[in-house]
Amino acid sequence: MRPTLELAEQMTQAACAAAAGAGCLVSAAVVDAGGHLVAFRRMDGAEFAGATIAVDKAYTAAGNRIATLDLREQVAPGGDLAGYYAASGGRFIAFGGGVPLWYDGLVVGAVGVSGASGEQDHAFAGTGAALWEEAAGELDG
Amino acid sequence: MRPTLELAEQMTQAACAAAAGAGCLVSAAVVDAGGHLVAFRRMDGAEFAGATIAVDKAYTAAGNRIATLDLREQVAPGGDLAGYYAASGGRFIAFGGGVPLWYDGLVVGAVGVSGASGEQDHAFAGTGAALWEEAAGELDG
Amino acid sequence: MRPTLELAEQMTQAACAAAAGAGCLVSAAVVDAGGHLVAFRRMDGAEFAGATIAVDKAYTAAGNRIATLDLREQVAPGGDLAGYYAASGGRFIAFGGGVPLWYDGLVVGAVGVSGASGEQDHAFAGTGAALWEEAAGELDG
Amino acid sequence: MRPTLELAEQMTQAACAAAAGAGCLVSAAVVDAGGHLVAFRRMDGAEFAGATIAVDKAYTAAGNRIATLDLREQVAPGGDLAGYYAASGGRFIAFGGGVPLWYDGLVVGAVGVSGASGEQDHAFAGTGAALWEEAAGELDG
Repeated sequence: MRPTLELAEQMTQAACAAAAGAGCLVSAAVVDAGGHLVAFRRMDGAEFAGATIAVDKAYTAAGNRIATLDLREQVAPGGDLAGYYAASGGRFIAFGGGVPLWYDGLVVGAVGVSGASGEQDHAFAGTGAALWEEAAGELDG
Repeated sequence: MRPTLELAEQMTQAACAAAAGAGCLVSAAVVDAGGHLVAFRRMDGAEFAGATIAVDKAYTAAGNRIATLDLREQVAPGGDLAGYYAASGGRFIAFGGGVPLWYDGLVVGAVGVSGASGEQDHAFAGTGAALWEEAAGELDG
Repeated sequence: MRPTLELAEQMTQAACAAAAGAGCLVSAAVVDAGGHLVAFRRMDGAEFAGATIAVDKAYTAAGNRIATLDLREQVAPGGDLAGYYAASGGRFIAFGGGVPLWYDGLVVGAVGVSGASGEQDHAFAGTGAALWEEAAGELDG
Repeated sequence: MRPTLELAEQMTQAACAAAAGAGCLVSAAVVDAGGHLVAFRRMDGAEFAGATIAVDKAYTAAGNRIATLDLREQVAPGGDLAGYYAASGGRFIAFGGGVPLWYDGLVVGAVGVSGASGEQDHAFAGTGAALWEEAAGELDG
């Protein structure tokens, strides 16, 4: 199972709806297992940084099988991954907003959100990822 | 006037519908006047190269105020822009699929499509751009 | 409303004049809403790093809708945006000197200054931005 | 002798005035002997590609001691510099618009113009360079 375009767009819409509900303007992206973009949307008025950062958060989450929020402590000085974000040509991002999508023990994609605080972006991305878990659960059941 | 998210998504959908009608699998992107992504969709089964090339075609069209199909001859050896595509950090693309969106004498965004031949991608992007022209024309009228 | 070339040059001149008054040698840049350069000047004797850093500070401020001075704490280890400056191909800068230009709730450009301390650069950029606010206010009034 | 900010701005203004006289919208840049930006201006309505290409043309001309128009044949397939433009991280540009500034047998800077055809950009840059030659000649005389 993988994030189809139809499901990916439901995820970016859900993430943006959650942001709108919190009064935030964000960009939302879904990438596939290879970290390549499937769907993207930037809310009217959201900053242009989101056009790359939302994608790169999803890329980071898919490529490292971890929520980017959980990278924050690891990349601090002395941490296990200090200096980590210079890897991958600068595309790895170590603050909240990227959430991997799991299926049957494998990461098959990720959601990335950018525009609010790291913790908010993480929560909005989680709203999108919840749709995935629901769809994946139905397939499992 | 500018490409809102709502209109941008209609444009990427129209471009993908035109590709589907021709039996092609593509990615479609819309960028704003600054070349930054507004909306993107990649059809199920479309190659992952489209995730960057469709975006970069739109970026090229917006940044140079020209359909990328029209750059093809200019970048040929001996042409006025030979070697052009190495510029801008390698993001400029000189084959068909990027179409600028005009309003009141200014370029306010662009559509980019990637996945089929350059001429097909150009035509699919044009389907999206036609929606813009219609919307922009209504505002003028 | 947007930063025309004429107004952009007044802003870079004002920022450089403020720096000269403080005995500093700086570079000053103004970018548009998409983060693309409109006007730039480097004072005689100012370090060449300013040729990219002033531009990138303005790019950061426009792309993130925030003064780069205000990013400083967020990017500290453990902060919400730790590792932030590796994003966007290394163009994001998280110390003082970039100031966004607002109009009607949107960021329509930014001023960037580099060459002195982060707090000084922020103040010099603010001198430029003040011209914008004055011009924008007259349009509103 | 070197291109001071004052002289550099006269050069970018002269290049833009020449472009305006020909009905073209361009960006114009002057770099120093190290290829680093001294002054830049983008005419209202000129494409955003000029924000990097005008600078990179000047960078190429300064770094290679040659007008970029004269690189065109050398970079053609089979030419002495085939594939040249991939060097320098993609910053070298091999079509018209970059013109070096000479003094006493050394290149001390360059003018770069982007926005019209390669031959036009070369001519507009030459208008700027002529101011340099005049100023340098007076110092020699």
